[in-house]
Amino acid sequence: MSETGATAILKEEVDIVIPTIRNLEFLEKWRAFFQPYHLIIVQDGDPSKGIKVPEGFDYELYNRNDINRILGSKSHCISFKDSACRCFGFLLSKKKYIFTIDDDCFVAKDPSGKEINALEQHLKNLLTPSTPFFFNTLYDPFREGTDFVRGYPFSLREGVPTAASHGLWLNIPDYDAPTQLVKPLERNTRYVDAVMTIPKGTLFPMCGMNLAFNRELIGPAMYFGLMGDGQPIGRYEAMWAGWCMKVISDHLGFGVKTGLPYVWHSKESNPFVNLKKEYKGIYWQEELIPFFQSVSLPKECTTAQKCYVELSKQVKAKLGKVDEYFNKLADNMVTWIEAWEELNPSAMAPKSDALPNGSAK
Amino acid sequence: MSETGATAILKEEVDIVIPTIRNLEFLEKWRAFFQPYHLIIVQDGDPSKGIKVPEGFDYELYNRNDINRILGSKSHCISFKDSACRCFGFLLSKKKYIFTIDDDCFVAKDPSGKEINALEQHLKNLLTPSTPFFFNTLYDPFREGTDFVRGYPFSLREGVPTAASHGLWLNIPDYDAPTQLVKPLERNTRYVDAVMTIPKGTLFPMCGMNLAFNRELIGPAMYFGLMGDGQPIGRYEAMWAGWCMKVISDHLGFGVKTGLPYVWHSKESNPFVNLKKEYKGIYWQEELIPFFQSVSLPKECTTAQKCYVELSKQVKAKLGKVDEYFNKLADNMVTWIEAWEELNPSAMAPKSDALPNGSAK
Repeated sequence: MSETGATAILKEEVDIVIPTIRNLEFLEKWRAFFQPYHLIIVQDGDPSKGIKVPEGFDYELYNRNDINRILGSKSHCISFKDSACRCFGFLLSKKKYIFTIDDDCFVAKDPSGKEINALEQHLKNLLTPSTPFFFNTLYDPFREGTDFVRGYPFSLREGVPTAASHGLWLNIPDYDAPTQLVKPLERNTRYVDAVMTIPKGTLFPMCGMNLAFNRELIGPAMYFGLMGDGQPIGRYEAMWAGWCMKVISDHLGFGVKTGLPYVWHSKESNPFVNLKKEYKGIYWQEELIPFFQSVSLPKECTTAQKCYVELSKQVKAKLGKVDEYFNKLADNMVTWIEAWEELNPSAMAPKSDALPNGSAK
Repeated sequence: MSETGATAILKEEVDIVIPTIRNLEFLEKWRAFFQPYHLIIVQDGDPSKGIKVPEGFDYELYNRNDINRILGSKSHCISFKDSACRCFGFLLSKKKYIFTIDDDCFVAKDPSGKEINALEQHLKNLLTPSTPFFFNTLYDPFREGTDFVRGYPFSLREGVPTAASHGLWLNIPDYDAPTQLVKPLERNTRYVDAVMTIPKGTLFPMCGMNLAFNRELIGPAMYFGLMGDGQPIGRYEAMWAGWCMKVISDHLGFGVKTGLPYVWHSKESNPFVNLKKEYKGIYWQEELIPFFQSVSLPKECTTAQKCYVELSKQVKAKLGKVDEYFNKLADNMVTWIEAWEELNPSAMAPKSDALPNGSAK
């Protein structure tokens, strides 16, 4: 399909979710690409401080007071003073596709100097199938100018629906605090012109800075956990969502892609502050990864919601002993699903016409 | 390490194995990069037709008469009139690293116009660890200018030894005959500047056109099967080796990388001839892939040889019913290992100093 064709068709099916906008230049820099779309801005900090949105944008803005008002007794599942609050926007959206981006990410350029329309590339990734069961050495076989290579089984070439598209960052790489401290000057200058499916059974570190997903297929699994104010960790919100989302996508037969598009990540966050937020996560992840690598979901879990509730039980049973925090997190995972079902009353199994390509296996 | 440093150290540890040289320009074009190394040329066709090697190259040349003489009653395990005969060179080599390349592959250029030293990139890939247990979104974390991203478990950052490095092709992509027929004009023009580990448990279609491996770690699994004259299939030699090699690498805790380096693949083979060679393979692979995806090797299999003999038993037990060919292939897999042990009498478990990095898990 042509680029403009795909964009035009999807304009009404996409929400852009942004967790706070501190940088006034952010929307101006993205105006050419974002203005046609609807924005959901979730203010992560003090609700008395306003956010100034430039003229011409179509947006909704929510602060903590709105979260409390809309979710009531369930509002505790949304993080406070942390960009993890963005998932409130996922909950409120009624669109099929979500693109979420941080306010320190700007328009990157490809090696020819052309500005990259990140959202358009994400939509291409989401609208074409994934290939999680076998690795294609020329990467995404659905990109123009490429295909499946010799030896790729024909029965697997139809692919499966794509649940998520994970984009990357030029300039400041998404390093943890220890790596930031050891390599303060390292910048990502390598433009890797590839999109690929992360194979079934393989986990990856998801980053929420530049991420898109099919809300109908996997939205309920995109809970960014409990981070920030009052919580013992930070900077693990997208990791948590990524691990949960990947094991659920694997179970439901959906694919997850990574690679293009790039954004220009402008600002290195403070490594000393990050170390304080991360240190428990760095320790805990050594137990979380084996847990997620061995998660098995029963056949009865046929929707992202059912999978997520089941996963919350396993989190409580197996990670509760790592730290009391995981019992609380497991309870909030359930609250999140209750809130999802309240705000999305028809959100059951995706209808067959909700699948962009092929069908779930 | 510096590029020239790595190359200098390894000069005595590398053999370049080439299955026949029909194109007289081939070695001239590679002279700057190949002349410092030792070549093993295995002539795949009529032994009465000589191969002219330009002056200045250090080489051994073997034809069918040599294979029969050296292997005697075991010579039937080496394919005749097919590039699969290249594995005879793997058997005879005494070096730690093998680079194998086809005579229609020439020096490619990177986007800056610089000629790519394919062998040097393969050695870099083989000398740095692999990361098969978790996907790094910035690709090979051991490349200059990159690292493990946030959320990558620290306990997995040491990596595992790299068994094989699978390089790619610009210009003519490695498509099967049906895809060649459908897309006769498609050329691969996309230079993807990445090297990555294929995750544990994931299979890929290996191509022998531009391939390197650590012979001490995985050499015995690099058997290219029975193809060509007198056999019911062709063009599946590297696929077969790739599936066997990958499940054995996964079992032994070694990694397999794919991506850089590129070579320039100049010649499209005849799709009608290819279709005749491939059609059974295209059908059979639908049963072969599920077989390899479910292969389980016992703990007692601690070397590539032991794994390969065990795999031959499972091939016979489970694929023999697909076609009688697989019984014959299984027998020849055993013969291949017998030949390997005869020609490499000390080839037992790799010594700890044979591991380029870390240790097998």
